Amino acid sequence: MRVSVIGGSSVDGETAAVAAALGERLAKRGHVVVCGGLGGVMEAVCRGARAADGETIGILPTNDCEDANPHVTVPIATGMGHARNALVVMNGDAAVAVDGASGTLSEIGLALAQGRPVAGLDTHDVDGVEPVDSPAAAVAYVERTAGAD
Amino acid sequence: MRVSVIGGSSVDGETAAVAAALGERLAKRGHVVVCGGLGGVMEAVCRGARAADGETIGILPTNDCEDANPHVTVPIATGMGHARNALVVMNGDAAVAVDGASGTLSEIGLALAQGRPVAGLDTHDVDGVEPVDSPAAAVAYVERTAGAD
Amino acid sequence: MRVSVIGGSSVDGETAAVAAALGERLAKRGHVVVCGGLGGVMEAVCRGARAADGETIGILPTNDCEDANPHVTVPIATGMGHARNALVVMNGDAAVAVDGASGTLSEIGLALAQGRPVAGLDTHDVDGVEPVDSPAAAVAYVERTAGAD
Amino acid sequence: MRVSVIGGSSVDGETAAVAAALGERLAKRGHVVVCGGLGGVMEAVCRGARAADGETIGILPTNDCEDANPHVTVPIATGMGHARNALVVMNGDAAVAVDGASGTLSEIGLALAQGRPVAGLDTHDVDGVEPVDSPAAAVAYVERTAGAD
Repeated sequence: MRVSVIGGSSVDGETAAVAAALGERLAKRGHVVVCGGLGGVMEAVCRGARAADGETIGILPTNDCEDANPHVTVPIATGMGHARNALVVMNGDAAVAVDGASGTLSEIGLALAQGRPVAGLDTHDVDGVEPVDSPAAAVAYVERTAGAD
Repeated sequence: MRVSVIGGSSVDGETAAVAAALGERLAKRGHVVVCGGLGGVMEAVCRGARAADGETIGILPTNDCEDANPHVTVPIATGMGHARNALVVMNGDAAVAVDGASGTLSEIGLALAQGRPVAGLDTHDVDGVEPVDSPAAAVAYVERTAGAD
Repeated sequence: MRVSVIGGSSVDGETAAVAAALGERLAKRGHVVVCGGLGGVMEAVCRGARAADGETIGILPTNDCEDANPHVTVPIATGMGHARNALVVMNGDAAVAVDGASGTLSEIGLALAQGRPVAGLDTHDVDGVEPVDSPAAAVAYVERTAGAD
Repeated sequence: MRVSVIGGSSVDGETAAVAAALGERLAKRGHVVVCGGLGGVMEAVCRGARAADGETIGILPTNDCEDANPHVTVPIATGMGHARNALVVMNGDAAVAVDGASGTLSEIGLALAQGRPVAGLDTHDVDGVEPVDSPAAAVAYVERTAGAD
């Protein structure tokens, strides 16, 4: 299935390592990563997925595919700014939030509003988000809760 | 100035009364209400604003202006579904959240991500949202924190 | 009713005069002008409508209402670039095209695709666009063909 | 490079054969097909590209990836209706129009407005569109005019 991974665009090394481990896990389990295509968590999760030969879709806020991080295999330009956040979560069967600030909060809200299950790794404490303590637990949660695929 | 009012699309009578009082207060202070144009908090705040002859802009998720509640003076159709949430908060100088579920949470995130101050009346407890206990306090907060107009 | 006026963002004096006369005519007939909010035909038609105290809605490609021309009474920011063209014509009951290049061509296509009648003043020669030779004829055409309002 | 292929959503057998030949030619030349993901020309060009193992991106107007035709390898849901037309052409380095009605006309306008070269096979006669008489000529034109990739 497809899993939207959402999180901060600038992160410390520890968070980047978690995001990369998540990307690798998702790819090894055969899932496609969908993200916002830029840096921070978005770049780390794509890097991890690519290490396991996974596919990575980056839905960009800008109108230029060249703005995608180098680990995105399918960049999609939108030129829509923050309005593209709705598309990032619409294109996953479920979402995992890693860290993140207000942009991530908006994507959590949009994911829940569109009926997607959301697992959270060190992210906003919000009703409806399942707190998990490892990438493996995040993947297990979305596999269990998203429609089988 | 313009104030985006965000909140649940179905509400109980008490919340509707708070939203209506907020709309009336905003209109009396000369502000324009921006909202999502549908029911619940959106309809109540527009009704309140109209009682004081205020202007009410409703930015709809559908492609049909007829879907606006009857108290919207300027309906704007978008046909964009949840992606229109970004436009609701972009078009206000500040935002007030009243109650609400995941859609409102997404708009809070989008407002903060776009640098808008946000006051909260019985809504999500989120960093960056100023909890207030009355419509008057909400209006005072956004007047104090948004760029003067 | 609402009439979307679409056309080039930079125009010569003669075209601007036609657009201004169109705006004035629309306003005198009680119609609201919807446009893209920027310069050229968009500015001229708003200026004309304001001379007759009309309402003018400007749906902007940028995320900043300050980018609207000074004759727009209701600026709507979208931050969506060219994707906002669909909203400009969706928010009118009919459209009038004045002059214009590829952006205008896209709006003609979007208007027709959404079932709006389109009158054309010195614009693209396209099936489905009714060529007219004066602002008065343009207004008469859209009044006759759009759903009564 | 990526080539956006735009055209009617219901077509006769002859037009479908042209679109399929175009898709196959693009894939054999190593190009990725971008389209609106639905039927008619969109389905035929994807079918042709898949026959040569090409990649096919379908940017859908709906919010459900299941709406893509079966030959789309990367469906992208937008839930934005006609506003997604801007994204279809933004995500190609060039465009080829095949047949088509008003939706296609809007995409031609949006492609030109965004600086993309456009080749036309039996489509609208519009300034800026290069009329070509075969899929091979269309591919040659976009290869010659789009930025090398």
